[in-house]
Amino acid sequence: MTNAHSCTHSVTFLPAGRTVSVADGETVLKAARTAGLHINASCGGSGVCGKCRILVEQGKVKAGLIDKLLPADREAGFRQACSSIINENITVRIPVSSALGTGGLSGDVPERHRARMHQYDIEELRQADIFMPPVEKLFLELPRPTANENMADAGRIILALNNQYDKKGVTISLPVLRKIRQTIREDDFRVTVTLARPVGSHGKNLLVNIQSGNWTKRNFGLAVDIGTTTVWGQLVDLTTGKILAEAGDYNGQLSYGEDVISRIIHAEKPKGLALMQELVVATINTIITRLLTNAESPNGSGKQITDDEISSITIAGNTTMSHLFLGIEPHNIRRSPYVPVTTLFPPIRARDLNINLPDYTVALVYPAISSYVGGDIVAGVMGSGMYRTNLLTLYIDIGTNAEIVIGNREWLVCAACSAGPAFEGGGITHGMRAAVGAIEDFSLNPETLEPMNLTIGNRPPIGICGSGLLIIVATLFEQDIIDHGGKFKRNLNHPRIRAGRSGFEFILAFKQDAGGGQDIVINEVDIENFIRAKAAIFAGVKTLVEEVGLTLDNIEQIVLAGAFGSFIDLDSAMTVGLLPEVDPQKIIYVGNGSLLGARMSELSNHIRKDVVEVVHRMTSFELSEVGSFKDQFIASLFLPHTDQRLFPKLSARLAVARDR
Amino acid sequence: MTNAHSCTHSVTFLPAGRTVSVADGETVLKAARTAGLHINASCGGSGVCGKCRILVEQGKVKAGLIDKLLPADREAGFRQACSSIINENITVRIPVSSALGTGGLSGDVPERHRARMHQYDIEELRQADIFMPPVEKLFLELPRPTANENMADAGRIILALNNQYDKKGVTISLPVLRKIRQTIREDDFRVTVTLARPVGSHGKNLLVNIQSGNWTKRNFGLAVDIGTTTVWGQLVDLTTGKILAEAGDYNGQLSYGEDVISRIIHAEKPKGLALMQELVVATINTIITRLLTNAESPNGSGKQITDDEISSITIAGNTTMSHLFLGIEPHNIRRSPYVPVTTLFPPIRARDLNINLPDYTVALVYPAISSYVGGDIVAGVMGSGMYRTNLLTLYIDIGTNAEIVIGNREWLVCAACSAGPAFEGGGITHGMRAAVGAIEDFSLNPETLEPMNLTIGNRPPIGICGSGLLIIVATLFEQDIIDHGGKFKRNLNHPRIRAGRSGFEFILAFKQDAGGGQDIVINEVDIENFIRAKAAIFAGVKTLVEEVGLTLDNIEQIVLAGAFGSFIDLDSAMTVGLLPEVDPQKIIYVGNGSLLGARMSELSNHIRKDVVEVVHRMTSFELSEVGSFKDQFIASLFLPHTDQRLFPKLSARLAVARDR
Repeated sequence: MTNAHSCTHSVTFLPAGRTVSVADGETVLKAARTAGLHINASCGGSGVCGKCRILVEQGKVKAGLIDKLLPADREAGFRQACSSIINENITVRIPVSSALGTGGLSGDVPERHRARMHQYDIEELRQADIFMPPVEKLFLELPRPTANENMADAGRIILALNNQYDKKGVTISLPVLRKIRQTIREDDFRVTVTLARPVGSHGKNLLVNIQSGNWTKRNFGLAVDIGTTTVWGQLVDLTTGKILAEAGDYNGQLSYGEDVISRIIHAEKPKGLALMQELVVATINTIITRLLTNAESPNGSGKQITDDEISSITIAGNTTMSHLFLGIEPHNIRRSPYVPVTTLFPPIRARDLNINLPDYTVALVYPAISSYVGGDIVAGVMGSGMYRTNLLTLYIDIGTNAEIVIGNREWLVCAACSAGPAFEGGGITHGMRAAVGAIEDFSLNPETLEPMNLTIGNRPPIGICGSGLLIIVATLFEQDIIDHGGKFKRNLNHPRIRAGRSGFEFILAFKQDAGGGQDIVINEVDIENFIRAKAAIFAGVKTLVEEVGLTLDNIEQIVLAGAFGSFIDLDSAMTVGLLPEVDPQKIIYVGNGSLLGARMSELSNHIRKDVVEVVHRMTSFELSEVGSFKDQFIASLFLPHTDQRLFPKLSARLAVARDR
Repeated sequence: MTNAHSCTHSVTFLPAGRTVSVADGETVLKAARTAGLHINASCGGSGVCGKCRILVEQGKVKAGLIDKLLPADREAGFRQACSSIINENITVRIPVSSALGTGGLSGDVPERHRARMHQYDIEELRQADIFMPPVEKLFLELPRPTANENMADAGRIILALNNQYDKKGVTISLPVLRKIRQTIREDDFRVTVTLARPVGSHGKNLLVNIQSGNWTKRNFGLAVDIGTTTVWGQLVDLTTGKILAEAGDYNGQLSYGEDVISRIIHAEKPKGLALMQELVVATINTIITRLLTNAESPNGSGKQITDDEISSITIAGNTTMSHLFLGIEPHNIRRSPYVPVTTLFPPIRARDLNINLPDYTVALVYPAISSYVGGDIVAGVMGSGMYRTNLLTLYIDIGTNAEIVIGNREWLVCAACSAGPAFEGGGITHGMRAAVGAIEDFSLNPETLEPMNLTIGNRPPIGICGSGLLIIVATLFEQDIIDHGGKFKRNLNHPRIRAGRSGFEFILAFKQDAGGGQDIVINEVDIENFIRAKAAIFAGVKTLVEEVGLTLDNIEQIVLAGAFGSFIDLDSAMTVGLLPEVDPQKIIYVGNGSLLGARMSELSNHIRKDVVEVVHRMTSFELSEVGSFKDQFIASLFLPHTDQRLFPKLSARLAVARDR
């Protein structure tokens, strides 16, 4: 099979069974991209993260300069995809730990948190009298023109809208003017018009579509959350407010790096920005197709919804995602002083971005606050109703960055904390995303120290996701296996505790029990990284609260957003000092806050309008520029905190437990 | 040269010397279109007007079914281009009377009328405090971002516009957002922004372009009049208000018929609407190129103006032309009850219509009143200042239709009279447009009846244009050669007066003196057609005035628009009863009123804003639906009128003359 002198080689990937032809000298990572397959590459293919492990099963690859593999891995046949150069035909296996798997995409809130799930539904909007989708369909029976009354077709419609629906100041778009003549005569001057409401209070209604006959019950909207990792969409019935379908997929940009920085770097390359835009649009188009396929037929009509019936779309994402989606250069977001191009995004025709929607459908992109407090957070603030509540609320969305918003209907302050990627599996030896095989829940027999690993999909464990990591650290601390500083007690003699390359480690699953062919461990460097992450968040919250002259005690409500926020174990979060110690009744879960806000904007034009005023009201703090933040951070680098009085319940519990 | 069995044939056109290859069975008219040559075809190529005369000089054509040629013409070798079928190689000469010629395009007012020329110039706008072009360029020196002040690039600009120019509510377009980051850093945060003012009072300023450095003195606008026959453009300096260049060209649609009805018929054919749009856009693009080539360099900078410096465009045209320009179906404009699709046209990006202007330049199309009172008339009302005057004004634009507007700043009424094409040479045996060789002025030796024909371009006469026709009829009437009914006095025995196919006729130029190889005559049918045309207009004015409870005496000012209006001989117009008898000091000439209004809109955003209110204020009358109109028309079918008391000065003059 060796053909070292040919200019192209065939590469077969397992388990997908996909074969591609690539040029001599290409890397396996690029070949995988060509094949449309995903290999984890946190570092963007630069070779330093060592996560893109593959097994070369047939043929040989030429090693590149960089090698971050463990010696054991190398002996077992693993190679780094990014620095494996192809110069013959090969067959490569992508191990499950290097691929994303297929589970764990749900933006839903788990059963155990449903009771405290936020229900900001259509009834609440109706009661607040703000149920008013941005686009409505109205049926008109027009008088026929006569010699005495030969008003223009367009004027006839505008007059009828005024007479029948009290609509004033309607402008008709050119595409509608181009088809109005035929359309109104198809069904004897009976037409349905699609009216886009003005976002501001002074704008005009824009008549964006016209259909012959009555189609008022077929009016649909899309809510989209563009996450750095996953993109979520919901198809909404704009007449009933009902969610007709929900679908998600990995962001197509993911092959170019897992975090926003990698994406920005790619966007800076020639044609890179256009590529990043195309990839996320392709993902959105895939989701639209899925939503339409999955959607139940509305009103029991039995008629499938088609893309040309979607008349509105709202999109929310972090600042970098919003820039990339609109083709705006994100370059300075990653460079001090971290200036985005814009925080307000103009409405734009979805078709102009190549989204498969009617030519009149206008995309509204949620405004951002700064480079690191994006439209996803603003959407959460709007969608959760935080901007209209009297309760002093802490809104927190934990990912690579934790974004924090504090305030109520009167005022809002916000900040982003660089928590690092620990909660998403980054910087943790066996960290991984919340995918199949990830340990998401955990307990320890206090006598035997034998663990119970609960994994997503109930498969042999291959790693630890964020919520698992939190419970593991909290359990190790509560059971006195690690100390306040996160170090293993040196006096413990147990087969699961051993000295490793990164300090002491706890073996969660031995090789024979694990899914990835290796021991799954948590070590002291992992725990240190976890503590730094939780400290950044806690310090951020405390700094922000104190900057506005309040204390943690004043918080009346905590809104937890994001997948990690949904799956978080509250006891553990308060045990390690990630969240302030509060009454669990004060906690509200919103799941994907960004998607929630996008949907609420589809249901209420008031929210679309209010958001402009809300973003002007939100004061953004650069924590690194606040003098007290560094001290707060250092004080938080303990379990749960240097000042244990902040966690009185935990302190009391630990005192009792350790007395025994 | 005969190759009757080949599937294509070559056709050479003289005098142009252009050769094209066409399919067997094609007509000469279509071949001429292919060659880009013009042949008059008033009937749209249907064969009935008989104007598309050509001479087949080499080879033979197969005759079609329809033949409207005079026997003498046929014997002289003339054929109708539209019904001459090509089945061999031929050489064809397009006689000068069948082509448009090259002169007579000027939209200017002749020297003799300059004193009464309307001067609505920049100083008047400044004095009225309404000089405010729709687009302005502003120079900004922005503060550089720092760690403490890291506002987004877009926010930085919006804040500076507020601080430096008190501009509030600015939205930045997506194309600008896409280039802002690089542009503001090219010249150390010194930029020029292009701001489009809102048309309404509540809209937002839209930031449509950004350039590094200071470009505030390079801001240009375009005014365009789309006439059925000719398209005119002016390039305007938006900082000074100065006209930098003017250019015109025949409307590219002209090959598809000379009047709006023929154009509508073509637009109804498959792809016909798109073709009509492409043709007029191509004409506009030609004019833009010419304007930029001809324009003097502004501010003496010596730097040529380029199309990407044109930031605004206003377009005016009749209702059919506006529909075709925007690709809106005009079908019902020609069918009772004459309903246009729309009278209000939304702003549209010029680039979306394939006009060669920057992607941010928005075209504003003047609103119309009805199918036959179009944006060209509205533009005249705005441009002439009629909508702001206290004087009771009659605005009149005479072409195939004569559009009439009566009113002042308080109220406006309007109507279209079907004058027929007599003033543009239609229905007149030797009628022609105001092109080279057209008799435009005329006098008659009262003793010898020997005429003096003055032609455009001082060439041998080939026909009679509208202003010539008016003077000829007025002269024949005043010299008692024709009677009140337009019939030749039967007692005159003169070699220039003879009985012809269409009643008696007067030979204006014998064959040997004429440019087209035939006698140029005016006959009784021509005069009858002229009288019907002038009667329709006079009856329209009188009906409209009386409908609002006034009399002709109340008119304080007459605004004459259009080429015919500019060149009209006032004495003749009052002699034949085309215009009411008024003091010549009450007459104002505006030339091309449509172009004037378009330019005024480029200079004053107030006019763009006011026009919406003005069109809502204009009451349109369908004269055919007004009971008294028919009687008025019949009463006007005399020279000057049945009721000679309406023309006291003329009556007195004639009485004196005929007494002698």
